[in-house]
Amino acid sequence: MYDSRIPYDKSAAIWSPDGELVQLSYARKASEKGAAAVGLIIDEKTILLAGETLFDPLVLKPDKIQEIDNRLFLVASGLSTDSNLLIGQARLVAQQHRLIYGEKISIRALAQRLGDLMARHTIQGGLRPFGTALLLAGFNPISKQSELFFVDNGGSYFAVNAYAAGSGNEKIIDALRKNYKPGIGVEDAKKQILEIITEALGKKEPLTEKELEIRILTSE
Amino acid sequence: MYDSRIPYDKSAAIWSPDGELVQLSYARKASEKGAAAVGLIIDEKTILLAGETLFDPLVLKPDKIQEIDNRLFLVASGLSTDSNLLIGQARLVAQQHRLIYGEKISIRALAQRLGDLMARHTIQGGLRPFGTALLLAGFNPISKQSELFFVDNGGSYFAVNAYAAGSGNEKIIDALRKNYKPGIGVEDAKKQILEIITEALGKKEPLTEKELEIRILTSE
Amino acid sequence: MYDSRIPYDKSAAIWSPDGELVQLSYARKASEKGAAAVGLIIDEKTILLAGETLFDPLVLKPDKIQEIDNRLFLVASGLSTDSNLLIGQARLVAQQHRLIYGEKISIRALAQRLGDLMARHTIQGGLRPFGTALLLAGFNPISKQSELFFVDNGGSYFAVNAYAAGSGNEKIIDALRKNYKPGIGVEDAKKQILEIITEALGKKEPLTEKELEIRILTSE
Amino acid sequence: MYDSRIPYDKSAAIWSPDGELVQLSYARKASEKGAAAVGLIIDEKTILLAGETLFDPLVLKPDKIQEIDNRLFLVASGLSTDSNLLIGQARLVAQQHRLIYGEKISIRALAQRLGDLMARHTIQGGLRPFGTALLLAGFNPISKQSELFFVDNGGSYFAVNAYAAGSGNEKIIDALRKNYKPGIGVEDAKKQILEIITEALGKKEPLTEKELEIRILTSE
Amino acid sequence: MYDSRIPYDKSAAIWSPDGELVQLSYARKASEKGAAAVGLIIDEKTILLAGETLFDPLVLKPDKIQEIDNRLFLVASGLSTDSNLLIGQARLVAQQHRLIYGEKISIRALAQRLGDLMARHTIQGGLRPFGTALLLAGFNPISKQSELFFVDNGGSYFAVNAYAAGSGNEKIIDALRKNYKPGIGVEDAKKQILEIITEALGKKEPLTEKELEIRILTSE
Amino acid sequence: MYDSRIPYDKSAAIWSPDGELVQLSYARKASEKGAAAVGLIIDEKTILLAGETLFDPLVLKPDKIQEIDNRLFLVASGLSTDSNLLIGQARLVAQQHRLIYGEKISIRALAQRLGDLMARHTIQGGLRPFGTALLLAGFNPISKQSELFFVDNGGSYFAVNAYAAGSGNEKIIDALRKNYKPGIGVEDAKKQILEIITEALGKKEPLTEKELEIRILTSE
Amino acid sequence: MYDSRIPYDKSAAIWSPDGELVQLSYARKASEKGAAAVGLIIDEKTILLAGETLFDPLVLKPDKIQEIDNRLFLVASGLSTDSNLLIGQARLVAQQHRLIYGEKISIRALAQRLGDLMARHTIQGGLRPFGTALLLAGFNPISKQSELFFVDNGGSYFAVNAYAAGSGNEKIIDALRKNYKPGIGVEDAKKQILEIITEALGKKEPLTEKELEIRILTSE
Repeated sequence: MYDSRIPYDKSAAIWSPDGELVQLSYARKASEKGAAAVGLIIDEKTILLAGETLFDPLVLKPDKIQEIDNRLFLVASGLSTDSNLLIGQARLVAQQHRLIYGEKISIRALAQRLGDLMARHTIQGGLRPFGTALLLAGFNPISKQSELFFVDNGGSYFAVNAYAAGSGNEKIIDALRKNYKPGIGVEDAKKQILEIITEALGKKEPLTEKELEIRILTSE
Repeated sequence: MYDSRIPYDKSAAIWSPDGELVQLSYARKASEKGAAAVGLIIDEKTILLAGETLFDPLVLKPDKIQEIDNRLFLVASGLSTDSNLLIGQARLVAQQHRLIYGEKISIRALAQRLGDLMARHTIQGGLRPFGTALLLAGFNPISKQSELFFVDNGGSYFAVNAYAAGSGNEKIIDALRKNYKPGIGVEDAKKQILEIITEALGKKEPLTEKELEIRILTSE
Repeated sequence: MYDSRIPYDKSAAIWSPDGELVQLSYARKASEKGAAAVGLIIDEKTILLAGETLFDPLVLKPDKIQEIDNRLFLVASGLSTDSNLLIGQARLVAQQHRLIYGEKISIRALAQRLGDLMARHTIQGGLRPFGTALLLAGFNPISKQSELFFVDNGGSYFAVNAYAAGSGNEKIIDALRKNYKPGIGVEDAKKQILEIITEALGKKEPLTEKELEIRILTSE
Repeated sequence: MYDSRIPYDKSAAIWSPDGELVQLSYARKASEKGAAAVGLIIDEKTILLAGETLFDPLVLKPDKIQEIDNRLFLVASGLSTDSNLLIGQARLVAQQHRLIYGEKISIRALAQRLGDLMARHTIQGGLRPFGTALLLAGFNPISKQSELFFVDNGGSYFAVNAYAAGSGNEKIIDALRKNYKPGIGVEDAKKQILEIITEALGKKEPLTEKELEIRILTSE
Repeated sequence: MYDSRIPYDKSAAIWSPDGELVQLSYARKASEKGAAAVGLIIDEKTILLAGETLFDPLVLKPDKIQEIDNRLFLVASGLSTDSNLLIGQARLVAQQHRLIYGEKISIRALAQRLGDLMARHTIQGGLRPFGTALLLAGFNPISKQSELFFVDNGGSYFAVNAYAAGSGNEKIIDALRKNYKPGIGVEDAKKQILEIITEALGKKEPLTEKELEIRILTSE
Repeated sequence: MYDSRIPYDKSAAIWSPDGELVQLSYARKASEKGAAAVGLIIDEKTILLAGETLFDPLVLKPDKIQEIDNRLFLVASGLSTDSNLLIGQARLVAQQHRLIYGEKISIRALAQRLGDLMARHTIQGGLRPFGTALLLAGFNPISKQSELFFVDNGGSYFAVNAYAAGSGNEKIIDALRKNYKPGIGVEDAKKQILEIITEALGKKEPLTEKELEIRILTSE
Repeated sequence: MYDSRIPYDKSAAIWSPDGELVQLSYARKASEKGAAAVGLIIDEKTILLAGETLFDPLVLKPDKIQEIDNRLFLVASGLSTDSNLLIGQARLVAQQHRLIYGEKISIRALAQRLGDLMARHTIQGGLRPFGTALLLAGFNPISKQSELFFVDNGGSYFAVNAYAAGSGNEKIIDALRKNYKPGIGVEDAKKQILEIITEALGKKEPLTEKELEIRILTSE
């Protein structure tokens, strides 16, 4: 089974006989090696973003949750080389939008622009797919609601109420499917998330708030 | 039989000895893994579009049936990476047409423009064919009739009265060939479609309207 | 014999040791899988074009015989992806000619322009030859005669009195060589063509006019 | 012997260990499969061009001997795809020359321009050598003499008194070396050529003028 | 285990089945063969940069610690070919910034620009990753604090209090993790660094200040 | 020994493990298959150029010694395809020089420009080295002396008193080293050259002036 | 050991598993096959450049030591094809500098510009590293001191007091390390260099000044 795939996994721009892009699935593994990241909408106006931070006494705790524009946030999980490129691109796209239209880019539009770039890396020979998945979060001034988007490493994007990227993402998403309640309140959501990530990552000790970068985004 | 093909399936731009584009047939498999989608014209002035939607409590039900321009609709089935690229391209083409000609693009013209792009991905080395097929639907203001187009993943397009894309498409098309009646009325067509998809996808429980995104397009 | 060719058939731009372009011959097979198409000049001022149409109750009978410009017709046989590209290109070339020179392009000039494009796809690495052959037909206002051109899938073109493309083309051309009479009259030619195609395609039932798209082009 | 060459014959732009361009010699075979063509200068002011024409009742006898500009002629022997490209290129070059310099291009200059293009196809990866050789003929208004040039498929060109291209070219050239007499007169030259080609192509029946396209070019 | 990786390590732009960029890890080895370099922040306003210098009586001791702009320093460890390119690029970026914005580039911005370049060399076929890692150091006039950045050979960058690049970097970083104290004072830090590098490089004789290029950067 | 080289001889732009450009040495063989050519300076103001000409009764004796500009001559030995390209390039470079600087290009400058082009064909993938070597000769109006340059097929060029290219070049150069005397006088030099070439090419009959194209270039 | 490297030595732009650029080391061998060249600074204001010259009675002794700009000298050792390219490039860079800045380029700046070009040839697929190393020498008008730079074939450059390139370079550099004395005086240095090169090249007869091109550069 595995052997027969070998010749189809050397370029992003080749289909395997069963209609798969094998390089894209290899790159997904890189995105799942990134630090765990979770986002969820709590009562329509609040988003909780939590990014696992690895402690190194020499390294200044980097902002896992990056502010791209005024109250528009992005968490990138995966190969840090690729995450840096995408965060830089997100800033560029947001600035260009402001310059051209005189207003902040919408989260959906930013997800589409980044998704487009990431999709092109799956379709053109000589490039490789990105090894990073994204969570985009912010407040939509028109609908007066919070919005959360997930962009996978191939550039697919969709609006979510709660989702996870990076390490343990499948287990965390499963747990969210069972336990996510939009009206649970921020403090309870925090506790729940800590438990879910602890279990998904198979930690012996329960994670505390210190080991996560947590941001509560509200409409004001 | 299979072995002898191997060397011809590594690029979109190579013919096999029996005159086939093997990468194109591999990509077709990807487009047939997408969610099932059906369109049919009911009494010349109405189109019924139905797209299977997979339920995930975390994901906001995405619009399977995308409005590209005023009452011009597109359903893309296949690899979501590619579907996103084509939907974005369709919007761009439609906007450019409006800008240049001051009027909405015709469905046939849009099918041709997208088909062209998709065909080029089968003819040029270093690109791969798209893993997505399209249904385009809308009302033609000149002929005062509804129009439905199918664009396959290699860019071939043709006007249809009824057609399907994505999962189970062969079985659904077969069933439509036997059962499609242009004058059946919207409600009966809905029932028929639900039965046909249920059977084509081998579902134990009959599909209900909840599991499909259904849009009825009329000329007004 | 066959084995020794293998390494020479992976690119359009490589000669085999016996001076053949192997990819071009593979692509010819694709053009011979297309629907049968026949054109013949009947008493210098009339052209009969007949294109086999496959019946599908869901598909609107597509125009097998496409009008590129005022009374200038094209039939493309082969991979529909490639046929679409060439028809689109033919329209573009014809429109550009009108714009620049203020008159309709001649059939010979159009055959040359399309042949050039198709020839370039046999000479440049990274592209593949087209899997489509063309019949071009129309009335030449200067010579006051009808003209019929054949363009093969490698871009060679030549004026013909009668020719065939697509499925069964070799048998049909053989039959035309034996039976073609320029002065036979339209109705007799129609009957003859139906018989020839029926036999060439090995149909059990004789083909009727319903299964062919037939156009009679005259100088007025 | 043969085996050791294999790896050097996959690109125009690779030398074999013995200093040969193997693809170029393969392409020469294609040019030698083309219809036989002969040119010879008879008493300095007349050129006889003869091109073998294959009879097909359906095909309008194509001009084997193409007029590129006023009394400047070209015969191309080899793969018709490539011959078409080079004839088109010759016309373009001749027209550009007229436009820029206000006079007809010289035969030598045209041979150089086409030879340049053909040489570049032997030196650049991703292209293949042309499978066509050329005879160029005409009257030089400055020297008041007729000129005949041969351009081989690699782009080498040289002025000749008599030469052949295409099928049987080696035998015909050998025969011309033995029998060519510049002052023989047109009618005798015609007879001689018919005999030479008949023998070179191993025809059972002697070729007659019907099977050749023959043009006599004089200075007036 | 090793064997199965072989085919994935021939291009920067290919993922291995376990989601690794193998060429990037090979290039890292080159960056770890460079001379040892260490940077550390001592009481927020002072940075100590130490670069191992190899004594050659013929070579003028090159500046291991390069001043890119006024009090903005860079140490590059790895293949000197690549280090030269990156130092040149750093100067160019800094000059462009001055020209456009009329002020010195921030250390973070320079790290991002160089990181971007280095990341692109991991994502595009036909380029190779850089075999050099960077330490960037300087005084931030806005925060009135010293800043130290590390950029790895794939372009990831992060702010650090203390870090090492080049030969023995893993051992030095480990030792810094155990022993780094921000308030230790410059003279004690120097001694500590000499001991750490001596041990990490397995030197028999303790390194003295002569064998290192040491710079103390303060805010004035 | 030979086997181990095989993989390094498929591109101009690859070094063999022993620091050789194998394609360049293969191309040299092509240049040594060209017709023999010799140049020598006789008493500072005269150059004797002699090019072997192969007799073909059909071919007009081509100018082996080409005049590029007023009394600036070039002999190209090797693959005629490549010689043609380089002669054309030499003319272009000389004309551009006249246009820009209003004076004839110097022989050294022309040797450098052609050498640059030829060198680039050894350094860039997708091109092949030229299979031609050049002798450039003429009178230098500033030094009032004759100049002779040799450009090898890799683009190296140097001023010489006497040198040979093409068939038998090694033997001829050896003989010149032993026998060349700058003050020998033109007639004696001619005789000497005829003897040297006769022996180098292993001719049974001594070559006569008829079989060589000989030009005597003087300063007036 | 050797075998395992094979697949990594086919492109400049691929790392071997142990972090080496194998093509670069192959190219170094070419640069070490060039004629021996030595430079050394004698009492800060004088540079002695010595380049081995191979005697050929037919070849005009070429300037091994090339003057790039007013009293700025360059010696290139290695494949003459590459040396020519780099000398041409050096002249171009120097002229551009004069044009733009109205002053002579500094030796360091020229070393950097050439080093940049040479480094790019190690990082980009489709190019090969240069097979030439450079010595650059001249007087620095600002520091009032002589400067000598070495640029290796990968583009690394550094200021030196004495260094060697080309044939026997390792032995010569070793000998210089032991024997170089900056204040030895020009005549003694000459003698020393002759002895060192004689020994390094394993000559039976001691080299004399005739076999070297020697230039003494002083500040006036």
